[in-house]
This record gives sequence, structure tokens and C-alpha cells, in this order.
Amino acid sequence: MQRLLSSHLPARTGATVRIAGWVHRRRLLKSVAFLIVRDAAGLAQVVVTDPAVRAELERLTEETVVEVTGALVANPAAPSGVELVDPVIRALGPVATPPPFDLYRPELTATLPTQLDHAAVALRHPRRSAALRAGAAAVAGFRATLDRRDFVEIQTPKIVGSATETGANVFALDYFGRPAYLAQSPQLYKQLMVGVFERVYEVGPVFRAEPHDTVRHLAQYTSLDAELGFIGDHRDVMAVLRDAVAGMLAAVADRAGGALAALDVRSPEVPAEIPAVHFTEALAIAGAPPDERDLAPAHERAVGEWALREHGSEFVFVTGYPMAKRPFYTHPDPVRPVWSNSFDLLFRGLELVSGGQRLHRRDDYLAALAAAGQPAEPYRSYVDAFAHGMPPHGGFAIGLERFVARLVGATNVREVTAFPRDLHRLTP
Amino acid sequence: MQRLLSSHLPARTGATVRIAGWVHRRRLLKSVAFLIVRDAAGLAQVVVTDPAVRAELERLTEETVVEVTGALVANPAAPSGVELVDPVIRALGPVATPPPFDLYRPELTATLPTQLDHAAVALRHPRRSAALRAGAAAVAGFRATLDRRDFVEIQTPKIVGSATETGANVFALDYFGRPAYLAQSPQLYKQLMVGVFERVYEVGPVFRAEPHDTVRHLAQYTSLDAELGFIGDHRDVMAVLRDAVAGMLAAVADRAGGALAALDVRSPEVPAEIPAVHFTEALAIAGAPPDERDLAPAHERAVGEWALREHGSEFVFVTGYPMAKRPFYTHPDPVRPVWSNSFDLLFRGLELVSGGQRLHRRDDYLAALAAAGQPAEPYRSYVDAFAHGMPPHGGFAIGLERFVARLVGATNVREVTAFPRDLHRLTP
Repeated sequence: MQRLLSSHLPARTGATVRIAGWVHRRRLLKSVAFLIVRDAAGLAQVVVTDPAVRAELERLTEETVVEVTGALVANPAAPSGVELVDPVIRALGPVATPPPFDLYRPELTATLPTQLDHAAVALRHPRRSAALRAGAAAVAGFRATLDRRDFVEIQTPKIVGSATETGANVFALDYFGRPAYLAQSPQLYKQLMVGVFERVYEVGPVFRAEPHDTVRHLAQYTSLDAELGFIGDHRDVMAVLRDAVAGMLAAVADRAGGALAALDVRSPEVPAEIPAVHFTEALAIAGAPPDERDLAPAHERAVGEWALREHGSEFVFVTGYPMAKRPFYTHPDPVRPVWSNSFDLLFRGLELVSGGQRLHRRDDYLAALAAAGQPAEPYRSYVDAFAHGMPPHGGFAIGLERFVARLVGATNVREVTAFPRDLHRLTP
Repeated sequence: MQRLLSSHLPARTGATVRIAGWVHRRRLLKSVAFLIVRDAAGLAQVVVTDPAVRAELERLTEETVVEVTGALVANPAAPSGVELVDPVIRALGPVATPPPFDLYRPELTATLPTQLDHAAVALRHPRRSAALRAGAAAVAGFRATLDRRDFVEIQTPKIVGSATETGANVFALDYFGRPAYLAQSPQLYKQLMVGVFERVYEVGPVFRAEPHDTVRHLAQYTSLDAELGFIGDHRDVMAVLRDAVAGMLAAVADRAGGALAALDVRSPEVPAEIPAVHFTEALAIAGAPPDERDLAPAHERAVGEWALREHGSEFVFVTGYPMAKRPFYTHPDPVRPVWSNSFDLLFRGLELVSGGQRLHRRDDYLAALAAAGQPAEPYRSYVDAFAHGMPPHGGFAIGLERFVARLVGATNVREVTAFPRDLHRLTP
């Protein structure tokens, strides 16, 4: 008899079925015992009245892996409206050591550090696994959206020879006796690959030796990177990003709708055109002095509230950040070169994505590095590649864990990361 | 006027069109000049007769990025049967420095090291980019196949606290002042995640400090990992692997058929059931002594030839490798425990994939580590997780670059890797 997942049971009422999963919960009442089995698809209820089976069940602690065969009957009070009766229960392994916290309660009551110390079991809690499912769906939506627009997926080196790009916060490693570094982003490689495929994306780990212990920083996170050539300016990039975010949210609703419901999450609407304000207007909206060089968190919140009030949108672009505040490869606004052809996308008042148009001429790179006081040598093979013909291009990077945290309302990115790495945590 | 990709031109014969791309080749004949423009989709021919336009074209070296507007006329001798006449040609950037090798010849004549030194331009050659396109399609097919079978995509840590699993060939790094290592595989994490989702996969970089300078080894490669629970034994894993490989090849044909054709590659058939021989039979087929503990390359070739001859299959499973030759987490054959519930998949006589059933009881792990003479402490959080109920499970890992190299007939994995990392190479 083939094993059925819990989600397939309602269609089989009246049949004898076989299920398998983990002992999620037992309720040992006087005249009857209930066993809740958890599998990948959800929960199934088993009713035990036979004293011998009950004796066996009393031995099978929570999280023991079991297989149950029984007759499926309707019961509106059971999860999904059906339950197994007259069961035969068989353990598929040794009796489990109960986890240090109850997985069957609606919320995990253990502190986050305790959950992270015991991640392999904490992640079995339906709320924790739901967030990971939403993340997997979001990534699938990102890829599907870009695949439809002729982007090609790439893989780039995570070990690099120079501590480039931001220069700080890199992990150093011993590469066959030579110094090397973990890549902070695929930025330079994805730009080079525009020369090959015009449009590329990568989903992969990036590494930041962040000395900050905050709810937003991880030493490793998953970056959703895209880059495209033959653009007019950054607005063409923003249009692709708008579609990517809409595709991610649609995929979460489509592939992880149950997970969203379990988390009581409302998925936001993405307007066909996300409202955009220039950095100078954003300062005015936020009531900040016009000579501020960046948006403080309070300013971002104010701009987010403005977009919701004026445009009914939970998303808003801020464009044209000062060149001085953006990386050296950023393309200036050709008309007002103190500002840049860059953008941030704010979601519910917080920055979610950065992106923009990049320089595409070798001479402009050399000038930008000189202006930034950075040596050109570590960037030699990167900068030289621009001598061989690169089209106007731009791109963006979405931090997956921040996106999911924002979507599900988690205050700490560690709540939506399976095995986070940070200043203090290197295990499990 | 919207830019058209070269592949969309045949449908627009008679219209005035705008294309953009790289100067792939110029042929400056006496009375006429031809410009071949390369874009993401292929090649387009432009015919120049106007002396002023010709003078401009003579200035535009190969790889300069250009935009061409012209009338599209049929010409059976042109690539894709159409060509642009009476063109206006405009450079979209500075005149390019010609690359150190000709990209317009059917084959790159530069040595592989020279190509790798100039990867950003070498990858623009249609044969090099075709292999990367095939790889991207294969990954998409892997994911699609497993998505349809309810697998959930995961991301796992690439920085780990112990040099586990094989113990050797790991890269060490400085993690906020503490020693840490780059993960050689997601093996331990994907097993733990079976406890959460039952079925998981990951596509990501793995790192091997391989001291060997061979055509098959890279210091970073892309691993396609899958793991599934509630299996009977390794044969359930082999069935999923069969479907994954078939799905990868179908996706290559579907999404990168043009790339395959450009490489003159014949895609193999995957039988509905791939023939499987036990390790002991494989030794007999290869004419090897029955006390050999592993298959030498010549043995693998012999088994591959046998499968093609006897079963018409380019794929063959070898199962039951000696426990002594497999990693400590391998599940033994319950009947003949000197052999294992493991397998290799050979493709055209070479090992492509390893996999098998894993141990799922904590006590078995402790016994296996003790038998292997390995301390249990580095594996503590991993081994302890098995105390909390894990189903019988197994999985496999496919090395993407080896798969693509085998498929396209490349002798060196570096030919199908965008920016390879090895004993000697850390740039670009």
C-alpha cells in the first residue's frame, strides 16, 4: 500500500490508508488516545481505542518517526476533516529523544538562541518551516520571471583574489598558501557576463564579515542578483525589478499559499508602476534638511508612509542618490552628475533592494577609482574587460532573508534563515 | 523603434528595424562591406555600400558595441536568411580594444590558459557561451523535476565550524578571529533538512582544496544536491536520480537546443529504468579480480561499454560499493553488511553521480564514526539531531561542470566553467 501524504487524505475517505511522519502530539485521554502525525504536507489525526495499540503509543515519544495504517473516516472536528481509526502503528526508527521545546504548540516558546542552537528540530515547527517555504517559492518566482525575459543563470566565483568592492568586511582565507577572500557579491562578475549573455542572474551565497550584531545582518546570506545590458538608464532596470518582485510574491502565493496562511500573512500588491521619487524629493517628503547625504531610517519610514497615502503603494523607489554615497561603479546622472542613476526600493518603509545603472567605459572606471582614492590594480582584469566593448547596463541585488523577514513580519532575519551565520554563531 | 534580437528578424522581412550588439566580424570587400553583429540570440548580417557608412565601419573594431538601423531584406546566403541594407550604424560606446584572439572563427585558437586569463571576452565565443547555456538549462531541469516531486529548495551554510566529512582538502578561513572552513558539500545539512521537509535540494557552490592539477578537479564547483526521506532503500533514490537526469537533458534540449546544435552534440537517451549492476558483478564484467575494493577508470569504461552493448544505455548504475570505500554516513546493505546501499551513476563510462541510503539512527552514527577512527565531537550537533527522529533517507550529488563537460564532449571541466578556480588560478 502506497504511503499517502496528509494533504491527500480527504479524497480517500472510506479507504484503508497508510501514512508516515513524525509523532507531532499525543493526547492520552481516559477512554481514547489521539495521535497527531506530522508529515511534509501537514497534520493527520489518528484515533486509538485498542489497549494494546495505546500501550505502544505511550512508548512513542514526540518526534519518533512512525508509519500508521488505518481506516479513514470523516470527522469534521479533525484536522482536514478526516481521521484514521483502528490503526496499526509502527515505529520506523528508535524512540525519539524529545526536543528541548514543544513543537506542537502554536508558537515556539523557546528563545531564538535556543531555537538556533537546536535548528534541526526547531525548523520542524510549522511556523519556522513556513517561512523557509515562502523563501523557496520567492526564489522560484525570481528565476521564472527572469527566465521569461531571456535572462541566463550564471555561477560565479565565491573565492576571489582581491578584497575589492567595498574593501572592508571581507573574510580572508588560505588559498593553497596564498591570501584570498570570500566574495561579498557577484557584482563584478555579473557585469562581465552582460558582455556574454546581455541579461544574467545568479542566486547564491554572499559573505560579509559584519562586525555588527543586529537583527538585519548575517555573515552569509542569499543574494538574488540580476544585471542587464542595452538599457537606456536605471529606469529600465527598475522596470525589471518591479516585475521580479511581483513574480516573487505571485510565486509565494501560488507555491506557498498554505505557508502564508499559517503565518497569517497578507501579501502586498505590487503596482504596475511603482511610484518613484528623486532623492531630493524624498528628503523634502521626510522633512529632512536638503543637504542631507543619505536617508535615515526615519526618513525611509516617512517616504513609505507618503507612498501608501498618496499612491496606495507599499513599495516606493527612491532614485538619484548622491554619487558620493554609492559604489564607484555607479553611473552618474548625465545631466546633474552630482546625483546618480541609482535607486533603492523601499518596502513598508524599509530599504529592500539597491541597484542602478553602472559605468560601461573603461576610462570612466579608471576616473571613478582615482576619484574615490582607490588603487586600480586590484580591479585590473575587471576594468580591462570594459575595453573590449560593454553596452550600457545596470542591475540590482535582493537579499532573500530580508525580503522574507519583511514579508512574514519577522523582526530578526535569523528567524527565516535555516542555519544562520553571524558574529557569534558558527554552528550548527 | 524597439530593438529587435537577431532571432526575431526573419519574421520582419521588409520592415525597417533596429538591432544592437557587438561587432562580431567585418569583411571589407572592394565594392561592398559586411558587418556581422552578435547579440544574445545569435548573428545578424548588415550590408554596407554607402562610402560614408563604410568609413565609419572601418573605424569600429571587433567587439565595439553598436546599434544598427536598416531595411530588412531576404538573402538566403545570410545567417538566418535576412540582412539589413542601407544601414545607419552608431557606436554605443568607445571603439573596442580587439581581444587577444579572434572571436569570429569557428573555434577559439587560443590555448585554454589564455582563454581563462581573458575569460570575460573568451566566453563571448559562441562555443564557450553555448556550454554555459547548456549548464543553465540543466540546472533549470534539475529544479523543475524535483519541484514536481514536492522537493523544497534550501540554502545551507558554506562556512562551517569543523573540517568534517572527509577531513582533508578543506579551505581554512579566519571567522571573526576563530578558525572556520569552507563547506565541501551540503551533505550534513541536507540530511537534517529531511527532518523538516522530507525532500530537499540545493544548487550551490562547494569547495575543495584539491592539491591535484587535473582536467576534472576544481577548487569551487556547482553541486546539485538532493536528499529524500521515507525511502525503502537506495533504489528509491536511484529512481529520483534517473528522473532528475532525464529532466536535465530534456531541459537542455528544450531551453538550449540551439546551443547543443552549435556544439554538434547529440543528447543521450535516458532509459525508463537505467540498468544497474552490483559492484561484484561490475568487477566480473570488467575482468577485474573479485577482491578489488574500487573500480579503476578502465573498469568503469568496461562497465559503460557493457551497458551500451547489452542494454543500449549510455547510463549504468553500479550499486553496493564496499562499505570501506564509502563515507561514514553510508547505510550498509542489511543482508550483506560488507557492501553498502550506495551507488554511482556512470555516463559514457565515467562516474557522474554518487549517492546512496544514509544511516538514520544516532547510535549507528556513533558506531560508524568509532569504526572509522573518527572523533564524534566535530559532528556533535549533526549526530545529536538524529536522536530526535529521522526517517530512512538517502540522496545524491551531481557535479554540474562534470555533467556539462561530459555532455558536450569537453575534456577539461575548465572549458565549461565561466571563471574556474584551481590550484593555480584565482583570477579573473
